[in-house]
Amino acid sequence: IEDQNDKELKTLLNEYHYADIAEILDDLDNEDAVYVIKLLDSETTSDILMELDEDIREKILENLSTKEIAEEVEELDTDDAADMIAELPEARQAEVISYIEDHGHRDEIQELLTYDEDTAGGLMAKELVKVYETWTVAGCLRRIRGQAKDVTRVHSVYVVDKQDKLIGRLSLKDLIISKSDMKIADIAKDNVDWVNVNDDVEDVAKVMSKYDLEAIPVVDNNQILLGRITIDDIVDVLKEEADKDYQLAAGITQDVEADDSVWELTKARLPWLVLGLFGGLGSVFIMKGFEEVMETVPSLFFYTPLIAAMAGNVGVQSSAIIVQGIANDNVKGSLASRLIKEIGLSLINGFALAILVILFGLLINQDTTESFAIAISMMSVIVVAALVGTFVPIILDKRGIDPAIATGPFITTSNDILGIYLFFVLSGLIIGF
Amino acid sequence: IEDQNDKELKTLLNEYHYADIAEILDDLDNEDAVYVIKLLDSETTSDILMELDEDIREKILENLSTKEIAEEVEELDTDDAADMIAELPEARQAEVISYIEDHGHRDEIQELLTYDEDTAGGLMAKELVKVYETWTVAGCLRRIRGQAKDVTRVHSVYVVDKQDKLIGRLSLKDLIISKSDMKIADIAKDNVDWVNVNDDVEDVAKVMSKYDLEAIPVVDNNQILLGRITIDDIVDVLKEEADKDYQLAAGITQDVEADDSVWELTKARLPWLVLGLFGGLGSVFIMKGFEEVMETVPSLFFYTPLIAAMAGNVGVQSSAIIVQGIANDNVKGSLASRLIKEIGLSLINGFALAILVILFGLLINQDTTESFAIAISMMSVIVVAALVGTFVPIILDKRGIDPAIATGPFITTSNDILGIYLFFVLSGLIIGF
Repeated sequence: IEDQNDKELKTLLNEYHYADIAEILDDLDNEDAVYVIKLLDSETTSDILMELDEDIREKILENLSTKEIAEEVEELDTDDAADMIAELPEARQAEVISYIEDHGHRDEIQELLTYDEDTAGGLMAKELVKVYETWTVAGCLRRIRGQAKDVTRVHSVYVVDKQDKLIGRLSLKDLIISKSDMKIADIAKDNVDWVNVNDDVEDVAKVMSKYDLEAIPVVDNNQILLGRITIDDIVDVLKEEADKDYQLAAGITQDVEADDSVWELTKARLPWLVLGLFGGLGSVFIMKGFEEVMETVPSLFFYTPLIAAMAGNVGVQSSAIIVQGIANDNVKGSLASRLIKEIGLSLINGFALAILVILFGLLINQDTTESFAIAISMMSVIVVAALVGTFVPIILDKRGIDPAIATGPFITTSNDILGIYLFFVLSGLIIGF
Repeated sequence: IEDQNDKELKTLLNEYHYADIAEILDDLDNEDAVYVIKLLDSETTSDILMELDEDIREKILENLSTKEIAEEVEELDTDDAADMIAELPEARQAEVISYIEDHGHRDEIQELLTYDEDTAGGLMAKELVKVYETWTVAGCLRRIRGQAKDVTRVHSVYVVDKQDKLIGRLSLKDLIISKSDMKIADIAKDNVDWVNVNDDVEDVAKVMSKYDLEAIPVVDNNQILLGRITIDDIVDVLKEEADKDYQLAAGITQDVEADDSVWELTKARLPWLVLGLFGGLGSVFIMKGFEEVMETVPSLFFYTPLIAAMAGNVGVQSSAIIVQGIANDNVKGSLASRLIKEIGLSLINGFALAILVILFGLLINQDTTESFAIAISMMSVIVVAALVGTFVPIILDKRGIDPAIATGPFITTSNDILGIYLFFVLSGLIIGF
């Protein structure tokens, strides 16, 4: 398709949705992608750019002049525009902003750039439909026709007082079904939900999904209406959150994808492996301390990977369920009752597994005392591992640290060492060495 | 609050949002919760019931008569109504349905109950605003006033032809800005996205988040408009998906929460632990086979937990990133190039870790050949573990099996056994036993 047949290509691409074109561009090499972007008009390309993978967008923007970027930015909603500009190197940011012709749009983008990207301010758009409480329904509909041209989706109409303070909301539906001479103040709903501009995006996501909202207004500390956040942005936040937690649990820091460079992936993965290695070296140390046992009860050493695996698995299970419970706000009840539950749960699991270990011992004609010692120590290791897995995230959360970092390699490694140590000490007590 | 002071309690609760009341009820005991539900009118309680935890809702419904449940159902949108009825025991389902007074509502609910809950049909609601292409804008607005009363949020107005086939859509905004004598056919947008009633919910979620849609119409095989799905339902689907994958990765099957019963939690966790145990017993077997090495190179045995941990961690990292890539459709390129990348990546990580192992060996005055043997075998184990972690999910996905089950305990366990076996064989080759 790339043999310079511009016209044909253009008509072909115009039939596609911008999200589909973005997917095609993600697969093309950089030169071809820039070529396609320059071919299409900025109304489509601005949307395509926002849908692209961040790395690819960055490379394409490098190949566009600041003026061309400013043209793309003009077509975007303020929130996307601010995001795109924020990704540019600082030197180019100012230049792009100075090229934006619509001054209102420019000021709004500059305002959005001042907010932290993890706050409601960083996520909101300035595009919204705002009406004053003193207007009538007819006057309101007339003004909305003007305002709504800039707003892709209207959702709610926000009602403000003279000082621009948010005091209520209206749906378009309410406007359509009301008589045209009614005052806005009389038909507005005053139980409007809102978030503060400095609220954390995760909290915004929680509020919006709890109350099933599709858009929420953002206000400053004086209750003045600043912007609004729509549910599609929240869907992205939720997906990113979920991906991040999933990766953390697997021992991958930073936001990486399967197609990132080897170097990026190494940076994200190696630190956790080093942590695991230190844990492993710790067990080497512990086992060296029990070296003389090798002559009397060698089989204990055969069981160490099993003990480490059990301690790790149980710990990860307990921590995953607690981390998720904390994230969804459904961990209730006192610490004491949780303690009792976790002990009960791990005793049941441990007991079932201990029986299997004893059966296995019979099968391979292992000394019965040894089998019992191994089974009982394993059970204790499981209980301890479950407690560590449960309480480390709770404690981290109470101290204001993201409990998600406590799942995966962190819990596995500490439980490995602790488990192997416990295993040798307890077996020693039972067998008597 | 519970001292029978009905009036005060009622006015107090009426000031709260239903989602907040649901949260309070989640914490109350069953008897009090039923008491509160019976106190409030069905318009509020139906929403509260839908927000409650599934287990708690089930218990409360057990305490309501089928007539009372039917009253709640009447107040709900068709999709929520169908979900609530589906949760009841079969015998009560028919009874509740027969008590629904509004026959249109009843037929719609019965239709929805016929769809599988994992398909678009199971998620959609019958509430939507539908207009015929032959209407005028003015006539359309008049009819919408009628239809919209039943629809909480309008989003889009769907345009159908005489056979009720979906042919386009309109936003309320478009209607408001158009002249009142225009024909719907002239202002409708014909590039409407839709999903088939039998599509999988995960695919619906992908389409909606890819195209940033807030509602999508659902059609049957003849393109006849059946219902619509709104983004708030998709948010729930995405959250459930993410929770499920996270739990699978941690070795927890079934949808459980931290506050579920010990028995539920055991059922979800024990199977994976048994899998891990068999893996561990497998290593016991392998190490028994190398028992005579204990006398010549005992230190090899000290390193087995480390080898197992490394094999497990690397495997989980590789598989997590591939599983996520598959889910987000961003795993591209040929298998061969992925193979080369994964080998390169694990060689870099393995090499860095091998150096640390050799340094550790120097520190504890370990025999140099042994240190090198351990380091090199560990490196090989890491490469193999990364390949297993990468390709098992890819192969599962190609065979139509959810690759998410391949992360966590499954990969860890197989890599543990494989890793320990490789470790002994390779060390044996290097040291010579």
